[in-house]
Amino acid sequence: MTLDARTWTAPALPDLDQDAAAKLRRLIDGKAKPLGALGRLEELAVQLGAIQATTAPRAERATILLFAGDHGMVEDGVSAYPQAVTAAMVSTILDGRASINAFARTVGAEVRVIDAGVAADLPNHPNLQNAKVRPGTRSAVREPAMTAEECIQALSAGAEAANRAIIDGAEIIALGEMGIGNTAAASLLLHRLGPAPLEDCIGLGAGHDEKGLAGKHRALAAAVARWPGYGPFEVLRQFGGLEIAGMAGAALAAAAARRPVVVDGFISSAAILAAVRMQPDLLPYCIFAHGSAEKGHRLMLERLGARPLLDLGMRLGEGTGAALALPILKSAAAMVRDVASLAEVLGQA
Amino acid sequence: MTLDARTWTAPALPDLDQDAAAKLRRLIDGKAKPLGALGRLEELAVQLGAIQATTAPRAERATILLFAGDHGMVEDGVSAYPQAVTAAMVSTILDGRASINAFARTVGAEVRVIDAGVAADLPNHPNLQNAKVRPGTRSAVREPAMTAEECIQALSAGAEAANRAIIDGAEIIALGEMGIGNTAAASLLLHRLGPAPLEDCIGLGAGHDEKGLAGKHRALAAAVARWPGYGPFEVLRQFGGLEIAGMAGAALAAAAARRPVVVDGFISSAAILAAVRMQPDLLPYCIFAHGSAEKGHRLMLERLGARPLLDLGMRLGEGTGAALALPILKSAAAMVRDVASLAEVLGQA
Repeated sequence: MTLDARTWTAPALPDLDQDAAAKLRRLIDGKAKPLGALGRLEELAVQLGAIQATTAPRAERATILLFAGDHGMVEDGVSAYPQAVTAAMVSTILDGRASINAFARTVGAEVRVIDAGVAADLPNHPNLQNAKVRPGTRSAVREPAMTAEECIQALSAGAEAANRAIIDGAEIIALGEMGIGNTAAASLLLHRLGPAPLEDCIGLGAGHDEKGLAGKHRALAAAVARWPGYGPFEVLRQFGGLEIAGMAGAALAAAAARRPVVVDGFISSAAILAAVRMQPDLLPYCIFAHGSAEKGHRLMLERLGARPLLDLGMRLGEGTGAALALPILKSAAAMVRDVASLAEVLGQA
Repeated sequence: MTLDARTWTAPALPDLDQDAAAKLRRLIDGKAKPLGALGRLEELAVQLGAIQATTAPRAERATILLFAGDHGMVEDGVSAYPQAVTAAMVSTILDGRASINAFARTVGAEVRVIDAGVAADLPNHPNLQNAKVRPGTRSAVREPAMTAEECIQALSAGAEAANRAIIDGAEIIALGEMGIGNTAAASLLLHRLGPAPLEDCIGLGAGHDEKGLAGKHRALAAAVARWPGYGPFEVLRQFGGLEIAGMAGAALAAAAARRPVVVDGFISSAAILAAVRMQPDLLPYCIFAHGSAEKGHRLMLERLGARPLLDLGMRLGEGTGAALALPILKSAAAMVRDVASLAEVLGQA
């Protein structure tokens, strides 16, 4: 079977429920608090209701889908860490000993790891879904990171992971990732799909020194020169990565099932950027958890017209920012559900 | 017994444990993540450790002390709501049906209400501590809001509530309040103790229209003209309120017992401003949860040299902002406790 971009079409997404949104707005305005006094939590509650098509939004059960993949570009010096760190960190996450585990336990969220393309064999584990398309992308500096077939496989694996989580009860889908070299891929996506000047898209990633950063700039300039095209599917497959395509597919599937998508930092947002360029209706399904300290994320959020909930100077990935945003979503939903109306309270006054 | 400002002295506070802080900094730097990649959560973890004098900071058990009190100034038109709303909202909180209850349940925190001076009889309730100094302050527009004795009683009631919560196991003390008219009192404290021009300190509170806001300005200008002094204890007693003094006393007692103090919005920060002016060593014990949308809060945080964790356009009080910050503190502590070291992970790479 030969697949190409023409064989893959982003799913149609349901309309937001504007009627539920309007009802929720009135319900919230009638709560026992000054009008608008919960600020963005009120907007969030309305957004959740519009997505879920209900005046009783729910955010109790959140699943963090953590997509892992490697990047051939790492051979071309785009990362301060060796590729083997991806597999080592995935093992740490499966052991429950990474930052995302600590945060997810704190906020009561489930973490599922999807191997979309780690360049190593990973052990079987109940929290690991094996969806390895290939052991890492090819180097986008020198050739397309993925074939069209591979890119579609990764998108589909993401959709499948989201659908499985939803069948298992997820009310909220949060995205996270692990992949040495993936800030480089995200920078290329921002450059081409933002669009934005390449210089403005490249940051320190997991921790380059000056020399390393210069090498990253050179490698990414070469990648950009190699392939000058613009279509979002093609940009995604040319520059990678497999975990980014996985997140894009998961986001689209979640939205198709009326599940809010909580987006983590720079890499997750790059996946959303690609997905939104393929299907603009995705955007209002997304909740941008935090502004990453990685250079380029502000610009990316600007290009998406998005305003993140948190700004804590984080730049770790793994879904850590998304996890920290979940209690805010839960609180917004709890407010709708549990808070008395002003009329009830004034009846007591 | 006659008390005056000379009979009340802010408690001496223990030094922060700089040794624990330095050890924690090294421990965090050795975690399986890029250096500094958790941004403010790393700073928070170090702050918690320095306060608690440990390299294993704890933030699981948080108690929100919600101080309620009324303000005589309401008769002078400083609030859009009538005074009776304070008691009605306290009843709603005790019923578990206010925004703070919804949020506290979401984040797993306990709420205790302290009646420092509500102008109505409140029903007995297991979550209500009766520490009523008097049924509302006198109007600060026309006379001192409290006598020195009353102000000391409110400070002491706050300290007692904090000590009781700590004895019952609170690892974190969070502050919240309910009191119709208390943005007016907070504005006066900011004006005098910031200090800052009165105009810059006055906002819409719970929801003034233009005419109401003009009345608030006139009333507060009269209060300021009535008493031109500057000492922090005197400013607190002159302008009120009882719940603000309660929060100040609670913060000082919490710090004395090495408990981090999570500060909510404009009113709670005004209590901290008064307490910090009385005891500057309090400041590093405080964690400012969020930037309120109430005009004047940015300025107040600036005067305190504080940077809030969240910025969600909220202006409700009750401790709602403080509650939303608690999962961030918990996550910071969990990171220290649960995340593997880089050495452990690289041993697997």
